[in-house]
Amino acid sequence: MSGGLDSAVTFYMARKDYECSVLVFNYGQRAVCEVDRAEKLAASSSSPCHVLEISLPWKGSALLDTAAELPSEGPSEKGDIPATYVPARNLIFLSFAASFAEAQDADAIFIGAHQLDFSNYPDCREIFFENFRETIKTGTKRGAEGRSLQLVTPILNMTKKEIVVTGIELGVPFEHTWSCYNDGPVPCGKCESCSLREKGFREAGVVDPILIACK
Amino acid sequence: MSGGLDSAVTFYMARKDYECSVLVFNYGQRAVCEVDRAEKLAASSSSPCHVLEISLPWKGSALLDTAAELPSEGPSEKGDIPATYVPARNLIFLSFAASFAEAQDADAIFIGAHQLDFSNYPDCREIFFENFRETIKTGTKRGAEGRSLQLVTPILNMTKKEIVVTGIELGVPFEHTWSCYNDGPVPCGKCESCSLREKGFREAGVVDPILIACK
Repeated sequence: MSGGLDSAVTFYMARKDYECSVLVFNYGQRAVCEVDRAEKLAASSSSPCHVLEISLPWKGSALLDTAAELPSEGPSEKGDIPATYVPARNLIFLSFAASFAEAQDADAIFIGAHQLDFSNYPDCREIFFENFRETIKTGTKRGAEGRSLQLVTPILNMTKKEIVVTGIELGVPFEHTWSCYNDGPVPCGKCESCSLREKGFREAGVVDPILIACK
Repeated sequence: MSGGLDSAVTFYMARKDYECSVLVFNYGQRAVCEVDRAEKLAASSSSPCHVLEISLPWKGSALLDTAAELPSEGPSEKGDIPATYVPARNLIFLSFAASFAEAQDADAIFIGAHQLDFSNYPDCREIFFENFRETIKTGTKRGAEGRSLQLVTPILNMTKKEIVVTGIELGVPFEHTWSCYNDGPVPCGKCESCSLREKGFREAGVVDPILIACK
């Protein structure tokens, strides 16, 4: 869980059917406040939470390198991958999740990736998740023994509006989430991630609680 | 690179054709001395070396849990996975390697896995590496842009004897490697990994330099 809107809604969807444990990554991202947000969200449903500190000293992303410029809007052309892409980030996160899930014999891994509205991260595409499923099937003890470990991507094909509406139905405390690429305490309102969040709430016809909480 | 015999030989094979950067993981393994060994091996060819500290707080392996018993010989039945299996370890290591390789636009990732002699780790099997290749092809920017990143497993189908012979031909300083599952300064000579190393040197007709260095 990143502490953002998408992963918060995914977490609340998972909670409906599963007893959850939460994994959070502190990986040198600009918006380090999202780690606290994620911990608060986990605590809001009394779910155990591990915060893993991981180091990506090679950076390679505007999210990790404060000297780089953050894009203020979506990719200019269909297919362009934005400067905020972090090399192999979801692959690393899911690999830790697979290890954790295997060690505690969990049934499923949930991840809040979505490929609509913001489809250019290669590691948010269905084809990547399909290949990752095969990889854990063949590269873990559990898979080799024929016991399945599900990888669930419940919001993969939802729009931001649908994600917001689903979150409201499930009672997600959106005031505790953080979507901005920059650090807190107040979201910048300008970066690509703020813009997408704003669009989601606007289309859902709801005022974003974070705007009230930050006033 | 783990600092063991296999990854040292793999490193020296890679050096023949590539300018190499080395990744080493300190992940709570019993034999933490292998980290120093790996750094020494990297330094022996003036290759830059990153040591990443990663936390696997869920353990799930006799290599991470000093209260667990280490097996002293190979798995009793074909297909049994030993207690030293670490959940999703190679998947995690390779995910970091993919991130590193992408960030510095490297041509290839080398890993010293081998599936002969000691074939029961699911994450040392060819089928796992094949699926991982597809995963990085679809889940990285580089893959999405159609630029290939090779994953090379040069000793996958070698015997321990062949690995030792290859290492001798390449001048691998075996006295700086560490294979024992336990920590130093002297290898226990009893664990499964020591037994396999001993077999490799015996079959190659060579005295293991580590036995001389530790005298």
